Amino acid sequence: MVQFSRRLEEASLATQSLVCVGLDPDPNRMPVPDVFEFNKAIVDATKDLVCAYKPNAAFYEALGLPGLEAMARTVAYIHENAPHAVVIGDVKRGDIGPSGQSYAKASFGVWGFDAVTVNAWGGLDTVEPFIADPELGIFVWCRGSNPGSADLQDLTVETPQGRMPLYQRLASSCREWNTAGNVGLVVGATYPEQLEAVRNICPDMPILIPGVGAQGGDLEAAVRSGTDHRGRLAVISSSRGIIYASSGPDFAHRARSEAETLRTKINEILANEGLGWP
Amino acid sequence: MVQFSRRLEEASLATQSLVCVGLDPDPNRMPVPDVFEFNKAIVDATKDLVCAYKPNAAFYEALGLPGLEAMARTVAYIHENAPHAVVIGDVKRGDIGPSGQSYAKASFGVWGFDAVTVNAWGGLDTVEPFIADPELGIFVWCRGSNPGSADLQDLTVETPQGRMPLYQRLASSCREWNTAGNVGLVVGATYPEQLEAVRNICPDMPILIPGVGAQGGDLEAAVRSGTDHRGRLAVISSSRGIIYASSGPDFAHRARSEAETLRTKINEILANEGLGWP
Repeated sequence: MVQFSRRLEEASLATQSLVCVGLDPDPNRMPVPDVFEFNKAIVDATKDLVCAYKPNAAFYEALGLPGLEAMARTVAYIHENAPHAVVIGDVKRGDIGPSGQSYAKASFGVWGFDAVTVNAWGGLDTVEPFIADPELGIFVWCRGSNPGSADLQDLTVETPQGRMPLYQRLASSCREWNTAGNVGLVVGATYPEQLEAVRNICPDMPILIPGVGAQGGDLEAAVRSGTDHRGRLAVISSSRGIIYASSGPDFAHRARSEAETLRTKINEILANEGLGWP
Repeated sequence: MVQFSRRLEEASLATQSLVCVGLDPDPNRMPVPDVFEFNKAIVDATKDLVCAYKPNAAFYEALGLPGLEAMARTVAYIHENAPHAVVIGDVKRGDIGPSGQSYAKASFGVWGFDAVTVNAWGGLDTVEPFIADPELGIFVWCRGSNPGSADLQDLTVETPQGRMPLYQRLASSCREWNTAGNVGLVVGATYPEQLEAVRNICPDMPILIPGVGAQGGDLEAAVRSGTDHRGRLAVISSSRGIIYASSGPDFAHRARSEAETLRTKINEILANEGLGWP
């Protein structure tokens, strides 16, 4: 039995990479019409360069049952052809009681994800169903990469530990909930100060960091603030910046170039900190 | 063009009912194996007694693609055979940017819901994609019916209007966001004081109230605190208490009895308040 956080670290070691490729199929941007074929080409072209893939369920669901079928096929394809990689379902699910248990069953049993993003608005009750198996992990949506995330997440709350922004309070709760080594957090690269605050609260938990590509987050700040003290356990995710690097028949080749460039930049930042790969 | 809140009121007027039946298919409890056939029997048996149906997507997703296909067929069946009824997709979705837009497209365009429950953790950015069409509505998950909802939702936050529990702050935001008459809230019947507080903040918005059946919420308090000053715009939802009233071949008949009993009890409470149906 390998705890999820350890699995994630091994995935990074296998490719010397903190890069995650977001698989967000958009029919208006895909150079090939078939979602599975598009994803397959991206995976084939990038699998030696990344620690994780992150299909966002919203894009598949918007395509109806054929879209969701393509999502399931994509996950299975990654497990078979890039077995080192962790597959993170970006589903942002969360519900209570039997509904919450059903979402966990869907995430791991139906779609086959290794981990999912979770929306913890309903508290521990919404998180618990997803963390019963230490090998399967979650990333709790803590501080978004969008301006509107401030509406709730940055509100000042009163706690027994004093006043703090709500997202920091949630990060503290996640640390408490992480008794099995399989709880991580989502913090956008677009807000490096918030990322640093969360890393300080959760020094040894995985952090999934979207927003370095099309959303314009600061990569150097994301790497320095988001990794643990050893330069590990950050998953730096880019979707559109990689998979839509080209709208032509060279899309997979260009996706590889973008993924390689991102990996190289991250590894240079790590090396400058004395935290390169063994 | 009819605003969603008006559609909901007309649905209640048509059946003199605030009752919503939650369609949560559980293979371990359904007396018939086919999800669509089960739902069809429940709808046929209850359609003159309810204002809304509420399929919870979690249960369908846990059954994979056949489950989701049954969900889509169920929604279409209700539209055709109970055209007065509002179909609320209990999906608790919420994401930012193109992901949020994709969930809205899935909710209304793919599955065909009239309204969905939304998780607003990501702020207005996560809500906006769902409220572009005034005829289609949302219920923002404000205060859950589960004890764990207190973990975040009951925290005291500082606002320009003073200190208040977070769920009340979210209710205030929902009131601001409700410029098109299609934003409602979800508040559990298990916490009548919180329900009353939300109704006071949002006097003329729909409130979806789960938790009166199997979860043991106080029906009288839910009706008195949850309706508007005219005794309308509350959607009182029971799932397991109705659809699994019997595990035998009489399940649809028993579901009808339970729905009828709930409708009668609610209407007696309304009548005692002088708020009966015209």
